[in-house]
Amino acid sequence: MSGRALRVASLGAGSETRNGTGSGTQSGTGSGSGAGTGDRVVAGPDGNPAVTYGLAEFIAAEEMGRTRGYWWAPDGTALLVARVDETPVTRWYIADPANPERSPAEVAYPAAGTANADVSLVLAGLDGGLTPVEWDRDAFPYLVTACWDGEGGSPDPLIVVQSRDQRRMQILVADRGTGETSLLREDTDPHWVDIVPGVPARTASGRIVWTVTADDTRRLLAATAAELSGELPGGRAEPVTPPGLQVREILDVDGDTVLFTASDEPTQIGLWTYGPDGVRQVSDRPGVFGGRRAGGTTVITGRTLDEDGATVRVLRATPGGAGRESAGPGIGPTAGARIACYDEKPELPAPRPVMLSLGPRQIRAALLFPSWHEPGSGPLPVLLDPYGGPHAQRVLAARGAYLASQWFAEQGFAVLIADGRGMAGRGPAWDRAIAGNFADPVLEDQVDALHAAAEQFSDLDLSRVAIRGWSFGGYLAALAVLRRPDVFHAAVAGAPVTEWRLYDTHYTERYLGLPAENPEAYDNCSVIVEAERLQRADRDKITFRPLMIIHGLADDNVVAAHTLRLSSALLAAGYPHTVLPLSGVTHMTPQEVVAENLLLLQVDYLRDALG
Amino acid sequence: MSGRALRVASLGAGSETRNGTGSGTQSGTGSGSGAGTGDRVVAGPDGNPAVTYGLAEFIAAEEMGRTRGYWWAPDGTALLVARVDETPVTRWYIADPANPERSPAEVAYPAAGTANADVSLVLAGLDGGLTPVEWDRDAFPYLVTACWDGEGGSPDPLIVVQSRDQRRMQILVADRGTGETSLLREDTDPHWVDIVPGVPARTASGRIVWTVTADDTRRLLAATAAELSGELPGGRAEPVTPPGLQVREILDVDGDTVLFTASDEPTQIGLWTYGPDGVRQVSDRPGVFGGRRAGGTTVITGRTLDEDGATVRVLRATPGGAGRESAGPGIGPTAGARIACYDEKPELPAPRPVMLSLGPRQIRAALLFPSWHEPGSGPLPVLLDPYGGPHAQRVLAARGAYLASQWFAEQGFAVLIADGRGMAGRGPAWDRAIAGNFADPVLEDQVDALHAAAEQFSDLDLSRVAIRGWSFGGYLAALAVLRRPDVFHAAVAGAPVTEWRLYDTHYTERYLGLPAENPEAYDNCSVIVEAERLQRADRDKITFRPLMIIHGLADDNVVAAHTLRLSSALLAAGYPHTVLPLSGVTHMTPQEVVAENLLLLQVDYLRDALG
Repeated sequence: MSGRALRVASLGAGSETRNGTGSGTQSGTGSGSGAGTGDRVVAGPDGNPAVTYGLAEFIAAEEMGRTRGYWWAPDGTALLVARVDETPVTRWYIADPANPERSPAEVAYPAAGTANADVSLVLAGLDGGLTPVEWDRDAFPYLVTACWDGEGGSPDPLIVVQSRDQRRMQILVADRGTGETSLLREDTDPHWVDIVPGVPARTASGRIVWTVTADDTRRLLAATAAELSGELPGGRAEPVTPPGLQVREILDVDGDTVLFTASDEPTQIGLWTYGPDGVRQVSDRPGVFGGRRAGGTTVITGRTLDEDGATVRVLRATPGGAGRESAGPGIGPTAGARIACYDEKPELPAPRPVMLSLGPRQIRAALLFPSWHEPGSGPLPVLLDPYGGPHAQRVLAARGAYLASQWFAEQGFAVLIADGRGMAGRGPAWDRAIAGNFADPVLEDQVDALHAAAEQFSDLDLSRVAIRGWSFGGYLAALAVLRRPDVFHAAVAGAPVTEWRLYDTHYTERYLGLPAENPEAYDNCSVIVEAERLQRADRDKITFRPLMIIHGLADDNVVAAHTLRLSSALLAAGYPHTVLPLSGVTHMTPQEVVAENLLLLQVDYLRDALG
Repeated sequence: MSGRALRVASLGAGSETRNGTGSGTQSGTGSGSGAGTGDRVVAGPDGNPAVTYGLAEFIAAEEMGRTRGYWWAPDGTALLVARVDETPVTRWYIADPANPERSPAEVAYPAAGTANADVSLVLAGLDGGLTPVEWDRDAFPYLVTACWDGEGGSPDPLIVVQSRDQRRMQILVADRGTGETSLLREDTDPHWVDIVPGVPARTASGRIVWTVTADDTRRLLAATAAELSGELPGGRAEPVTPPGLQVREILDVDGDTVLFTASDEPTQIGLWTYGPDGVRQVSDRPGVFGGRRAGGTTVITGRTLDEDGATVRVLRATPGGAGRESAGPGIGPTAGARIACYDEKPELPAPRPVMLSLGPRQIRAALLFPSWHEPGSGPLPVLLDPYGGPHAQRVLAARGAYLASQWFAEQGFAVLIADGRGMAGRGPAWDRAIAGNFADPVLEDQVDALHAAAEQFSDLDLSRVAIRGWSFGGYLAALAVLRRPDVFHAAVAGAPVTEWRLYDTHYTERYLGLPAENPEAYDNCSVIVEAERLQRADRDKITFRPLMIIHGLADDNVVAAHTLRLSSALLAAGYPHTVLPLSGVTHMTPQEVVAENLLLLQVDYLRDALG
């Protein structure tokens, strides 16, 4: 390694592409006729192999939704480039112990409480000139995103930065000539300020798109800079979306029309526009929708409870209408072309989730029975199949989301999936109900959902309850059998986080703060600490529940140390458990045959465990 | 690292110690009054970090019983020093994935069929002069041992070298002035020539102690160089021990008396002397004996079936007798002092192994019942608890060898330990019955022993048979359930070799030859290949047997790759199994609390598995 530079390539004489080329996952190649000549380095390398230009660092890509590290000026004469220095970050070694001759990978992993990569920005001219962008990086070390949009003119770029505790977020305007920044707006939150994908963005008429929390709702702003900063006599800009409509993601800004997703019911994600004609829902049915829009044409993807796969429709700009500004009359349920879906049909019976709102907190849940099961025909063992971690909902009005759960149901389980506190789509307060503690409320909601479901459905056998999950869901499954063996009788924990001090800064500190400042919170959420409690217990008094732990040994996100340390702690407590180490497998779903066999082994294990 | 040198330290003015000092596990420090001054380097370093002087390489220490790499001249004026160059050896990385911040250890591991360390010898004078010892290292790359004994005069050193295929072994005499060597004797064997601990050695009168195979017996030689080399008209020297007495280890040469262990019954190891008065047995009871002898005084350690621990007696030289030469009348059952034994008493009932010779091959075996079991009171599940690998006997007439097995018996098992073909103490033909195949005959002997025992003892329930073992025993246990599920119903495999291509050169090639030349032998002995056979089978047709695999992740002898690859192959076959990865644990028994819990988890697992 000798560091990474950002290179640009010319498409031909005098015409620069808007793609960076060279190393880096997010950089394309300036292809096309006459392409590939005149490559030039615009930033870096600077001799330090720990320094990159133009790439997203680990935290940006994994936790902030930013997969890029450079932004072109609208006029193509300069770039805003992230410089990342991983020198201060702890190095971790990810070995491949099944192939001992392979040299272990060395990764810079910023674990909770430890140093992050040092991220800064430079303005790079095509002539090789570099201008540092200056802001208070001590107070705001996280570079959330940047935006250098703007039609007609060529405004200064916007950058968004965040404090280490994530309770302050600033939008800054960077002077493209001097690199000096000025504050446009600061948002604060006693817990954390959310990062919303797709903002800031600029409309054709120069309004800035942003979001704000008001009335326990994440709401859309589209305002001038002055309105956004609150410098006008009337104070800050008012949200354009109503209370109760939770804005999720801004997908595109097309002229003055903003395409975004939002939920008024958390299990459903609608596609919406905001434009000169106000706020309009583009999606026309219950379901989970997404889309893109440009030049007045909208592509809508939709999944519903009636279909396994996705429906994709293309809505052209209204004939005769102004393409850019129209979200217009031409966009409706019957208009546009449909793109055929060639998804392979699943071989198993279609999932028929019973959608529920359970208990006093109205926890959204889906319950799946075997296709061959007759209601009231006898008790079924129950399998909870949650994710449970912040944001990532499992209970959505899309049938395809339940294929694996239905497969488990076919093996003879009643499968219950519940989205408790912390899940997206129900507003800021629900999100923040897990601040400082994503053990107890998360576990409590699973238990409450189970018991509420069992009251409605007598076929659920509460004496045979298993729980399985991956990643946060694996954490939850392991915690469940160790902390609540009265409720849970077996668990399969895939790639679990077992000790949050081993997980990364931005995710973990958002909820638990710094380990040195909040050790109790970390301990309370540690599966290792839970196992250590059992070590001090009389082995005859422990209620042992079968626990299978699965982990990819090549996982560089939730490293295998989580599972190995838990296994050691369980062994020290004399706690029977099973480990399945997956060689060469990372945090994501492995190859098909492994995935299938993993499911088979889980079912065999749970069947045995529940008797 | 910058290579390792051999240093010597003076005990005082002009008096050199006979201990090397400096780095290296086998070097002591020249301590005592006035010690520690005048350290000097006598050999190395030579700038290459892969080169050491004075140390045993991995293969020497692990497989040849040689833990040292230097030998003093009897007159203290020079040393014979091993130079080891690990440059050609493949590097393996042993990581600690439970502590990802720790840099993985890099070890030079000579796997079967790959390059060994390049081992040579130099004669090092105390003045810093180095003289290379020359022999045909291409034909005889293994340095088995060296011997620079000799009283009165100061003869040239003897060195023992072996061919890569281990079928030829030479004793060479090295000229201490020139380093040139001359052949004293060559032994050959169509399978392999055994390395016997403690030889060659020289007696006071200058005879060389060696061993030879004759009449299917490993027998002692004590002969002049001329007799040994067969240069006399009468041909080679005749063995001094009788046919049927299997010489095991030469412990000491004291004057003209040779102290050694030998067996006429493989489960018993007697202590013997050979001297001017012929061959005499020193140990006086059935059991397992060892000892040391110098200056006419003998220390005898003995273990028997009547005692848990060891008995240690000290027999002084016969009063009035000549100390050195006497193995004499003073050595008898009643003579000498007894050293008290302060071994902690085991808390469990004393093992009461029933010693058996089973089946047509009279396989030696020990059978242990729970102390509370009444014969004929009902069937017990059977636990086979073998090692099974070449040499390392488990069935010995020493009660302390059965403590862990008795603990398992107390949990409700009939525990059977059988030593099949390949085990030490029964002679060269029995040793060589596993040449080219240590899968089938080894497994067959376990099955035959089981069935023969069940014919004698009706309490053995052949419908509930488990097998457990460590290292080779782990290999055997895994192979047993995969290849013979008709016999074995559950297994616990600890630190198993699953693929012999991943094990080391000297051990593996001795039995299986080179992988490139004998791929069928390697495949036939591979648990991985056995699992791959199951991958091709219809999953409905496979007889699944519960299999728990335990492996220390820091194991640098049988690396964790063995278990991880087996687990992957089993997963690909959809074969349920349990892995217990032991973080920070090497190939040896881990710390006490882990060991205890490991036993508990194994019992829990086997009980569940056998129903």
